[in-house]
Amino acid sequence: MSKVAIVMGSQSDWPTMQHAAQMLKELGVEYHAQVVSAHRTPELLTEFAATAADNGFDVIIAGAGGAAHLPGMIAAHTHLPVFGVPVKSRTLNGLDSLLSIVQMPKGVAVGTLAIGDAGAANAGLMAAQIIALNDETVRTAVQEFRRTQTDKVLSSQNLELPE
Amino acid sequence: MSKVAIVMGSQSDWPTMQHAAQMLKELGVEYHAQVVSAHRTPELLTEFAATAADNGFDVIIAGAGGAAHLPGMIAAHTHLPVFGVPVKSRTLNGLDSLLSIVQMPKGVAVGTLAIGDAGAANAGLMAAQIIALNDETVRTAVQEFRRTQTDKVLSSQNLELPE
Amino acid sequence: MSKVAIVMGSQSDWPTMQHAAQMLKELGVEYHAQVVSAHRTPELLTEFAATAADNGFDVIIAGAGGAAHLPGMIAAHTHLPVFGVPVKSRTLNGLDSLLSIVQMPKGVAVGTLAIGDAGAANAGLMAAQIIALNDETVRTAVQEFRRTQTDKVLSSQNLELPE
Amino acid sequence: MSKVAIVMGSQSDWPTMQHAAQMLKELGVEYHAQVVSAHRTPELLTEFAATAADNGFDVIIAGAGGAAHLPGMIAAHTHLPVFGVPVKSRTLNGLDSLLSIVQMPKGVAVGTLAIGDAGAANAGLMAAQIIALNDETVRTAVQEFRRTQTDKVLSSQNLELPE
Amino acid sequence: MSKVAIVMGSQSDWPTMQHAAQMLKELGVEYHAQVVSAHRTPELLTEFAATAADNGFDVIIAGAGGAAHLPGMIAAHTHLPVFGVPVKSRTLNGLDSLLSIVQMPKGVAVGTLAIGDAGAANAGLMAAQIIALNDETVRTAVQEFRRTQTDKVLSSQNLELPE
Amino acid sequence: MSKVAIVMGSQSDWPTMQHAAQMLKELGVEYHAQVVSAHRTPELLTEFAATAADNGFDVIIAGAGGAAHLPGMIAAHTHLPVFGVPVKSRTLNGLDSLLSIVQMPKGVAVGTLAIGDAGAANAGLMAAQIIALNDETVRTAVQEFRRTQTDKVLSSQNLELPE
Amino acid sequence: MSKVAIVMGSQSDWPTMQHAAQMLKELGVEYHAQVVSAHRTPELLTEFAATAADNGFDVIIAGAGGAAHLPGMIAAHTHLPVFGVPVKSRTLNGLDSLLSIVQMPKGVAVGTLAIGDAGAANAGLMAAQIIALNDETVRTAVQEFRRTQTDKVLSSQNLELPE
Amino acid sequence: MSKVAIVMGSQSDWPTMQHAAQMLKELGVEYHAQVVSAHRTPELLTEFAATAADNGFDVIIAGAGGAAHLPGMIAAHTHLPVFGVPVKSRTLNGLDSLLSIVQMPKGVAVGTLAIGDAGAANAGLMAAQIIALNDETVRTAVQEFRRTQTDKVLSSQNLELPE
Repeated sequence: MSKVAIVMGSQSDWPTMQHAAQMLKELGVEYHAQVVSAHRTPELLTEFAATAADNGFDVIIAGAGGAAHLPGMIAAHTHLPVFGVPVKSRTLNGLDSLLSIVQMPKGVAVGTLAIGDAGAANAGLMAAQIIALNDETVRTAVQEFRRTQTDKVLSSQNLELPE
Repeated sequence: MSKVAIVMGSQSDWPTMQHAAQMLKELGVEYHAQVVSAHRTPELLTEFAATAADNGFDVIIAGAGGAAHLPGMIAAHTHLPVFGVPVKSRTLNGLDSLLSIVQMPKGVAVGTLAIGDAGAANAGLMAAQIIALNDETVRTAVQEFRRTQTDKVLSSQNLELPE
Repeated sequence: MSKVAIVMGSQSDWPTMQHAAQMLKELGVEYHAQVVSAHRTPELLTEFAATAADNGFDVIIAGAGGAAHLPGMIAAHTHLPVFGVPVKSRTLNGLDSLLSIVQMPKGVAVGTLAIGDAGAANAGLMAAQIIALNDETVRTAVQEFRRTQTDKVLSSQNLELPE
Repeated sequence: MSKVAIVMGSQSDWPTMQHAAQMLKELGVEYHAQVVSAHRTPELLTEFAATAADNGFDVIIAGAGGAAHLPGMIAAHTHLPVFGVPVKSRTLNGLDSLLSIVQMPKGVAVGTLAIGDAGAANAGLMAAQIIALNDETVRTAVQEFRRTQTDKVLSSQNLELPE
Repeated sequence: MSKVAIVMGSQSDWPTMQHAAQMLKELGVEYHAQVVSAHRTPELLTEFAATAADNGFDVIIAGAGGAAHLPGMIAAHTHLPVFGVPVKSRTLNGLDSLLSIVQMPKGVAVGTLAIGDAGAANAGLMAAQIIALNDETVRTAVQEFRRTQTDKVLSSQNLELPE
Repeated sequence: MSKVAIVMGSQSDWPTMQHAAQMLKELGVEYHAQVVSAHRTPELLTEFAATAADNGFDVIIAGAGGAAHLPGMIAAHTHLPVFGVPVKSRTLNGLDSLLSIVQMPKGVAVGTLAIGDAGAANAGLMAAQIIALNDETVRTAVQEFRRTQTDKVLSSQNLELPE
Repeated sequence: MSKVAIVMGSQSDWPTMQHAAQMLKELGVEYHAQVVSAHRTPELLTEFAATAADNGFDVIIAGAGGAAHLPGMIAAHTHLPVFGVPVKSRTLNGLDSLLSIVQMPKGVAVGTLAIGDAGAANAGLMAAQIIALNDETVRTAVQEFRRTQTDKVLSSQNLELPE
Repeated sequence: MSKVAIVMGSQSDWPTMQHAAQMLKELGVEYHAQVVSAHRTPELLTEFAATAADNGFDVIIAGAGGAAHLPGMIAAHTHLPVFGVPVKSRTLNGLDSLLSIVQMPKGVAVGTLAIGDAGAANAGLMAAQIIALNDETVRTAVQEFRRTQTDKVLSSQNLELPE
């Protein structure tokens, strides 16, 4: 059963949001990915968010760009932890997405990650870190992932000046 | 019967949004003002927006600050024209509010006004200008308002250097 | 007879502003498109805006980039509702266009849409939503458009990870 | 035993970060608050973060301003979920704090909240939402908190124009 | 006969724009100051700008805030050199004013000064420097002004640490 | 004899600054173009600026990018009117160039134009407009240029939707 | 003999720049403080910078606000290390000062510190750290300063919730 | 023995940071370059920084992008002067990197250079200028470098308009 839901405002957000999926897959966490548009499918949003806990999800990751209302509106309908990924926008490089997601008022929270691919991957990592609190297999996978990336930094140095 | 609805995300937005109400009152347009929070009362938002047309409203004005999702989410639930007022936020001076409201994706539109009091007043003016398309009394009031403010600029000059 | 005028500061704004025209065409609203430069043809601007209501227009859409004065100056000469589209500028990505259009002083209003293509399309949608207040055919078209885009989101999901 | 650690870069961040503490107290979650400066006490930071899981913490909240390195450096030393609160800075209003916290590279994640008091309160809420995944008492408290704030919005309306 | 016109969008811009007047007075250049609003008195703007050269003005200084269209629209109607002063705005500190004035398209130019009082004073100085090209008295006054301020910097040093 | 000097901080600024030269050429104003680096040739800068008036120049145009100190430092050494062109920078799109040029303190003025090519062309136009104050041939050329660009806007409309 | 020169563009920068002086005093490093304006006393700037090395200075600290040209122009005239302090400006909070100082082109370097008081203090600290490379007394003082501030963080905790 | 250490957060920063290496090589200063990630190899960071002085380094150059914590964390562990290079980031063009590096709190300093290649080269130059304080060979090399670049500006002018 999937523990993590990945939702995004548009099919065009998938190239970014797949980095969340890949991270979860790498860490052995099942996920469910779906397009849910805050503006074009608001009823679906409400239904999805309101039933997410009962449907067995523990964490929701939501990505959107521009006037990015999806993460905050998901959070408005659930007590599950929600993470927001600001998708890079065409005109303002994702600064609009970032501010639309992170500047939530007191009382409804969204944990916001970096703009773009890195943020999506880290949303997956955050979800896994939360699941790891009560799942030793995932915890081991997270620790292994972290160790591996440390080793990569330590070993892969190639800093030559061009001739 | 009220033709214009003024909604805002929080009671604390009223000092800004009352400028919309005052403008409508000055132009002889009835309005209904209400707090509707996208994040804290999402069901109310859905119900309000989905029934606004049937309840006789022609235009909706929505003000919010920070990650301001109210105008866009209202627009997602109605075919009435929606105008957004970015309320000045405490930390980023309303730049976050502005981008959260104006950068809507294709297919769900919000006509956005200036940050703060001037924007709220102008949202009222925009609503009146739309109603004026089919209401000669309001059209006359709008034209009179515009004439009066022109006259004020023309007459009130006092540009003395301090001694 | 055209109900909506689309004006833009330069021929080079057409690739953006045509999205307003396409939206209006799709919704069955006749429009008139024209280049009117605030800085290079100010007399034309004055004449165009001052006679727009008498010429049968109900809504004016104005797009411009950089120090974008066209929408605000059009609004200064008419009581018709005016919508502004910030065209993406070469150096500041349209942030200059956006602020030049949206930050109007109290008393002369411009309903501002998103920067670029999405904003232009939504300006067309806003115009249609206003006309729909008194035109059932257009109202039906707007509702149908909204339903269709909802269906597209609901049906077109294809979220596979690359192998 | 405390489940949530609240750390901050300086004593002067406490007026902001106490909102996290108050939220946790309100939701019945024990917390431990401490000043840990990334730049002035880096050894303490390392020791604190590296032992946080063994010391029984489930979630870490870290607040800092300006070149805010504390949340990211905490995250570098633990697999626990870390939430960052950008404290409003004197010169750039917390935009520097926000970008320093949220723009983490792939592989080390910080869930970032809004700048200032609201963000601190929401960091506490996020921590409680995570603990609520396996603690029914906290889950009930979170749901009750959310219901109460919804009721407050619904009941407290007082939107009169000044005479 | 006045050589320099100082226009501003609103009476409330005078506390800023009087610094232009004071500089011109100090340099012995006669000026004429007037409120001309691009949005509220567009006909006045057109008439003022179109007749400025015939009325004996050599230089026009225009100050405005927010969506500041006055300097650019003045420039659209005259071949006289126009200088723009971005008045500090309430919400965005004059960044909106600055971009609205400086980012003019090719073919209609506005020489833009700093935001606020310093910019207004320097607009007066620029005007005097232009008049000085053909007026030896003003040239001497400009050179004297510059020398005096140099002397002030050289003489007024008092850099003691507080006890 | 050249009346206008065009200086720039680097050879790489010429693709931008040549638009100033082309404008002056088109308007029949002789110019002298030269690389003068504030940081790499400060003595040349001082000498150039201090002797510019005696060398017969009436106006100086200075273009630079990034921490653009050239226009302000030229202005520090002359009483001639100085115009600054912010060259688009690689990392911050010329926002750094713009602020470095326009935000001059009271007492030393730089008339700043738009970022990039349009700003350079308009710097040439401003210089010509100043010279036109006492040169009827140039005044006629400026007026003719303005008329021609108005005519181009009026005649060149081609706003067809793609099939 | 003073090893460190502190220069600033205006007497009004002293409340900021005195933090550099206080830091140096605290660390036992002699300094010389002086107002040198890039724009109002350019000859003094040239002379000061060109003779600084011969006058026994090892490091130069330069503070300025707005279009802050002082640090870069000092650096243009000396091979000594130059540190720049962006003084908080009235309109743009020092973002203009920061970009004007830090975005230097290749070949003339300025080590830039934070905007305002903290940056000034740290400029003093940087200067001392450089002198400490060859001065054991200063090195000890720097290490002692660092240790003391670490101890302050460790000991001064008082994180009580208000009743 | 190397006097200057160049560290960077990721192998992908080398195309930027090699400009520091090239500058040092050109000026005859030996350097050591290494990848040290604040977030992925925090223990390496601590060890590297804490032993840098004993290992014979005089200056440390640290480059990183996004939430760039490397320079500040290096500085937290050493009394050597540390210079930070903001690497251009994918989404926000290095503005995030710049603010994360430069806005250090009082007591731990990082001398920050420009975003990208120019900043990296200038970090190398700054390091050489510091070493030059006690090394006449390097001082001569720095002075020669500066003279050569001055000569290049003076000789390489080719400012022709395209036909």
